[in-house]
Amino acid sequence: MAGNSFGELFRITTFGESHGKAIGVIVDGCPSNIEIDEAFIQSELDKRRPGQSKITTQRKESDTAQILSGVFEGKTTGTPISIVIPNEDQRSKDYSHIADKYRPSHADYTYQMKYGIRDYRGGGRSSARETAARVAAGAIAKLFLKKQGIEIFAHVSGAGQIETPNVDSSDLQALLQIREDNIVRCADPATANEMIDFIDQIRKNGDTVGGRISTIIRGVPAGLGEPVFDRLHAELGKAMLSINAVHGFEYGSGFDGSRLKGSEHNDIFTQENGKIVTRTNFSGGIQGGISNGMDITFRVAFKPVATIMRDQSTLNQEGEETTISGKGRHDPCVVPRAVIIVEAMAALVIADQLLKQKAYSNI
Amino acid sequence: MAGNSFGELFRITTFGESHGKAIGVIVDGCPSNIEIDEAFIQSELDKRRPGQSKITTQRKESDTAQILSGVFEGKTTGTPISIVIPNEDQRSKDYSHIADKYRPSHADYTYQMKYGIRDYRGGGRSSARETAARVAAGAIAKLFLKKQGIEIFAHVSGAGQIETPNVDSSDLQALLQIREDNIVRCADPATANEMIDFIDQIRKNGDTVGGRISTIIRGVPAGLGEPVFDRLHAELGKAMLSINAVHGFEYGSGFDGSRLKGSEHNDIFTQENGKIVTRTNFSGGIQGGISNGMDITFRVAFKPVATIMRDQSTLNQEGEETTISGKGRHDPCVVPRAVIIVEAMAALVIADQLLKQKAYSNI
Amino acid sequence: MAGNSFGELFRITTFGESHGKAIGVIVDGCPSNIEIDEAFIQSELDKRRPGQSKITTQRKESDTAQILSGVFEGKTTGTPISIVIPNEDQRSKDYSHIADKYRPSHADYTYQMKYGIRDYRGGGRSSARETAARVAAGAIAKLFLKKQGIEIFAHVSGAGQIETPNVDSSDLQALLQIREDNIVRCADPATANEMIDFIDQIRKNGDTVGGRISTIIRGVPAGLGEPVFDRLHAELGKAMLSINAVHGFEYGSGFDGSRLKGSEHNDIFTQENGKIVTRTNFSGGIQGGISNGMDITFRVAFKPVATIMRDQSTLNQEGEETTISGKGRHDPCVVPRAVIIVEAMAALVIADQLLKQKAYSNI
Amino acid sequence: MAGNSFGELFRITTFGESHGKAIGVIVDGCPSNIEIDEAFIQSELDKRRPGQSKITTQRKESDTAQILSGVFEGKTTGTPISIVIPNEDQRSKDYSHIADKYRPSHADYTYQMKYGIRDYRGGGRSSARETAARVAAGAIAKLFLKKQGIEIFAHVSGAGQIETPNVDSSDLQALLQIREDNIVRCADPATANEMIDFIDQIRKNGDTVGGRISTIIRGVPAGLGEPVFDRLHAELGKAMLSINAVHGFEYGSGFDGSRLKGSEHNDIFTQENGKIVTRTNFSGGIQGGISNGMDITFRVAFKPVATIMRDQSTLNQEGEETTISGKGRHDPCVVPRAVIIVEAMAALVIADQLLKQKAYSNI
Repeated sequence: MAGNSFGELFRITTFGESHGKAIGVIVDGCPSNIEIDEAFIQSELDKRRPGQSKITTQRKESDTAQILSGVFEGKTTGTPISIVIPNEDQRSKDYSHIADKYRPSHADYTYQMKYGIRDYRGGGRSSARETAARVAAGAIAKLFLKKQGIEIFAHVSGAGQIETPNVDSSDLQALLQIREDNIVRCADPATANEMIDFIDQIRKNGDTVGGRISTIIRGVPAGLGEPVFDRLHAELGKAMLSINAVHGFEYGSGFDGSRLKGSEHNDIFTQENGKIVTRTNFSGGIQGGISNGMDITFRVAFKPVATIMRDQSTLNQEGEETTISGKGRHDPCVVPRAVIIVEAMAALVIADQLLKQKAYSNI
Repeated sequence: MAGNSFGELFRITTFGESHGKAIGVIVDGCPSNIEIDEAFIQSELDKRRPGQSKITTQRKESDTAQILSGVFEGKTTGTPISIVIPNEDQRSKDYSHIADKYRPSHADYTYQMKYGIRDYRGGGRSSARETAARVAAGAIAKLFLKKQGIEIFAHVSGAGQIETPNVDSSDLQALLQIREDNIVRCADPATANEMIDFIDQIRKNGDTVGGRISTIIRGVPAGLGEPVFDRLHAELGKAMLSINAVHGFEYGSGFDGSRLKGSEHNDIFTQENGKIVTRTNFSGGIQGGISNGMDITFRVAFKPVATIMRDQSTLNQEGEETTISGKGRHDPCVVPRAVIIVEAMAALVIADQLLKQKAYSNI
Repeated sequence: MAGNSFGELFRITTFGESHGKAIGVIVDGCPSNIEIDEAFIQSELDKRRPGQSKITTQRKESDTAQILSGVFEGKTTGTPISIVIPNEDQRSKDYSHIADKYRPSHADYTYQMKYGIRDYRGGGRSSARETAARVAAGAIAKLFLKKQGIEIFAHVSGAGQIETPNVDSSDLQALLQIREDNIVRCADPATANEMIDFIDQIRKNGDTVGGRISTIIRGVPAGLGEPVFDRLHAELGKAMLSINAVHGFEYGSGFDGSRLKGSEHNDIFTQENGKIVTRTNFSGGIQGGISNGMDITFRVAFKPVATIMRDQSTLNQEGEETTISGKGRHDPCVVPRAVIIVEAMAALVIADQLLKQKAYSNI
Repeated sequence: MAGNSFGELFRITTFGESHGKAIGVIVDGCPSNIEIDEAFIQSELDKRRPGQSKITTQRKESDTAQILSGVFEGKTTGTPISIVIPNEDQRSKDYSHIADKYRPSHADYTYQMKYGIRDYRGGGRSSARETAARVAAGAIAKLFLKKQGIEIFAHVSGAGQIETPNVDSSDLQALLQIREDNIVRCADPATANEMIDFIDQIRKNGDTVGGRISTIIRGVPAGLGEPVFDRLHAELGKAMLSINAVHGFEYGSGFDGSRLKGSEHNDIFTQENGKIVTRTNFSGGIQGGISNGMDITFRVAFKPVATIMRDQSTLNQEGEETTISGKGRHDPCVVPRAVIIVEAMAALVIADQLLKQKAYSNI
């Protein structure tokens, strides 16, 4: 209710501020007897952590996850799994200059209006550092989904004006390999190089830029998602829009699809190797809010990072005009690190819907 | 949980199938002592009802709302407001041809996979007829918000390839007047005419087309929305994505914003008549998931209506190839009627968030 | 959230005031393909309806349930089942004398304090008439549970000072027969007669009296109920305490058990016909909040009906002392009619927990 | 949903097993700007911790709470408050003898049935150790309620057959003093001595005994609690029934009230110093599920502790008959330590309802 929980049956609750003692998450509702591979959780966190490359923030945090409960002899027990990630590289003094100033396009002003108090250090709770907790929880969801044969793959499909061409998605593991071989996490090597040069230039200019991430979820059985309000794509959309800096979400044919005719856009059913499929997939694997067994596809737009290394005009808490300087260590573009956050949130949505489907079916 | 409720504190639950006895809604959590103007509720339903013009479906239903509870001597009592809308113009036999066929890009197949049974008449629960219940509930939310000085305005900003130019939004009531003066519900008269001709041609061709709706919410105080998962734009996004045929949502600068640089995109704070505002509004009135007092702006993409007046190949319930013919009375483009649904869902989100803000503040 | 819904996966939302147009309920989350026997639903309502016998209120209402949605060709479709029960025998003028007076031990004062407005006719929403909606919903839950082999049996085990001796509960259908053969709904014929005479005398004196209801739920598999906060008995307790006039709940050994020693109270595990059972059942079929497969047993205490046929001192809305006279047609003791409400709420709890258990297990 | 959260607007989620690394809690929804007195939180934990006296378990755990988030410069920020309490005195080998045996009247069997796996050490998640997390969260709720002028007082009103006479409750702070002056936490000194001797004798016999706790909540304004399902006493009842070993709950006149007549039981309204009160308080401060401004009173029954220092017959996981010996360090009677848990849960309920009342009123 207060906004720090996500999911109903597979539910996570995150806590922690950027510069407090720790951040963390409770995963409540993970089925029992799932094997927990702690190295996998850590490897997921490593993909999100700062300091990975020249095009990410240079902050250094190891983001080491510690499981406090819910796992016994390597398996989930069905009780809450709590994970704590201590905060390490806290240069709180980097933020003293914003203690009473509202950074443009940040949450400083709105938090102050909402709560009448805020932990200004690093943005406090509004910091994207919170998403590390989601990645840890998402890793658990992925371990659960893997047992169900479900794969999730996201990559950077746009940075600034650069667009990634369609990639052959028949082998997601191969794409993952390509993606992890470049620091921008794009599944097309040529575009990746172009993006890296572009973002690096942006960084050198003390500026930032936005981008886009595309996702495929494969292996989801038909029947997931609740109709009417909790449509599968509405849940995915909310999940994605809850990620810092996201300004847009589309699934299947998306905004482009709204420019087409029905005769062009309808997905015709047919059989393929004894399985019901559609010839095209403008529906993005979801019809009437419910999965139809095809690949689920969606795309997410991220605005440019608000912290730039330039002077900007703003107001202080007294409402007086002042200037704010760009300090600290920030990402020139969030999408390379956000890929893993998108996957984590997608995994959490699918895990939750799988449990719901289980609840209501086959009785 | 089963997907038929929306909102937490201001919560609605809808029920009813396209060709059952009635559809309806329970509004639970509307504050007491709100004056209920039944004529207003009906006028909202009239904007959504079928048969309004040559570019909407020719079905005739008066969609008369009857309040069964929760209102005493013209005012809300704080108890559940139940509204029933009887179904009238049911030509169920129009649907006998689809009893065992899966219409392309409809929910027939996914409902069958999910439930093992479906009321095939008119799409049953997956019919957009369900949205009439939302409009009735949304009208109550609007009556509540009006007391708080909050206005909501949506209009058609795109149909097929046609885009509406930016309109001067300084006077929303004036825009509303313009919008209601044309059957496509676009706030730009010239574009409206272009769209009407285009959609009418599409209809004559037995085809359909998608479109886009843009929305402004004005008068929302700073501080609405919960951080992290229940960001105000995530709630709005989920609400919009829960509307039939919606394939995309963006707020503020949206997808276009993801192509910009931070130095172009940041909204600079300043004072205007003693009020804190931002010079630009790429943030769409929401920063860190919380309203900042500026206009809240978002855009929604609708796919083309799946029912076309043409023969299409498909499968029947036995998985055999068959042909389905376009029958019945359908909309060539949903956006003219969907405008009021978008407004209703937006009103429900804001009402819910207002109550949450009230719960947590000023104690 | 506003208090008119119960359950999470098998969720009901009730609406309606005593003297409004109708009361009703939406059942959301009932699995699909359950056969709906409308005659059974009506027979359940008939056991709760007023005017059954000399020891219940003489109001006459047929309480006819009409299903508006969610059932297609006699089976549930998985979509919301809405049921409306029109109000009939409304002598609203019976209540004009209380429009501005607070009846002692009723909800008039507290509703006025909470909402600043109230539908005073018949107690409005606080009327026990609301429970008819629960009985209709409970009947659907019972139809679902019956398919799972689960039986629920409640009867009057106390009226005023009269206590029913333990009855042989090996055959619940036989007990049901006995219970329905007497108007007080006690499973012990001799005690039933004693109670009927007692309550009839109370009624003649213009007074009322409290009572107690005992319940057995049989056939619940081991593993139902969530640990910690949502223990099975905590859910049952909340359900029972939500029924009008209930002042107490105990399960298994209850309050008496708190006077025993551990060596007397522990239930020893053993095998019986290859099934794990306990020799005694002080645990009431629930250990650590989770069902163990034994009979679930609990007891509920109802206060005496607050409306008595006597003059009582009270205050009016201006806070002035005044006298209120007993008028209208009321029950001298609620327990005979409440038996079916207790069963309905128990059925709703078990249905909800069954779905949860299904969600989390066997994956 | 999975049972580890409590409350809606003021919501807690607990985690942790008896012999894992730590237990803890997240408090989500505590309003901002509440001063957090960490010494008070610790003093509350000290009242619950083991090893306090000869009549509690001799385990030694300091139960030191560490706040990881949500508090900035001594005040709540409105973001999740996470508290971790490391586990210290873990003699896990004390439990090796129950790794494959089901302790009578414990949760070993039901957890195994539910999850197919369990952390058997100290009962894992079913251990009453989990309630330390509730006490920490309850302390925060108390700090919030204190600002609203609300007091909560519980004490031991029964142990085995011993009943505490009614105590003068006009000064709750004085009663608190008396209660804390004796190790059984009874507000009547003479009865306290009797109980202490009795429980000590029970302990020496290797046995255990049940007891009862009575509670008064003072200063709650009229209007708290939602009608119908979420009645204030239903929320309190669920909260109490969620505490380990609780078998019964009654409020106001409770079970005894069900033996009275309406003419004896009705609470007559009158004015006292310009305030509306009732002459008697059989209603326990709650009418129609909503607080009326009088003291809220309720009573809770605890079964005898299941672990006794004697040999008992039982089954092992293979279903074979075996003997289990009493080992480890356990409480002979839980009520002295449970007093603070009852207060904590009551505080959490009232805090949650206060926020709800705030949400829906005065708009």
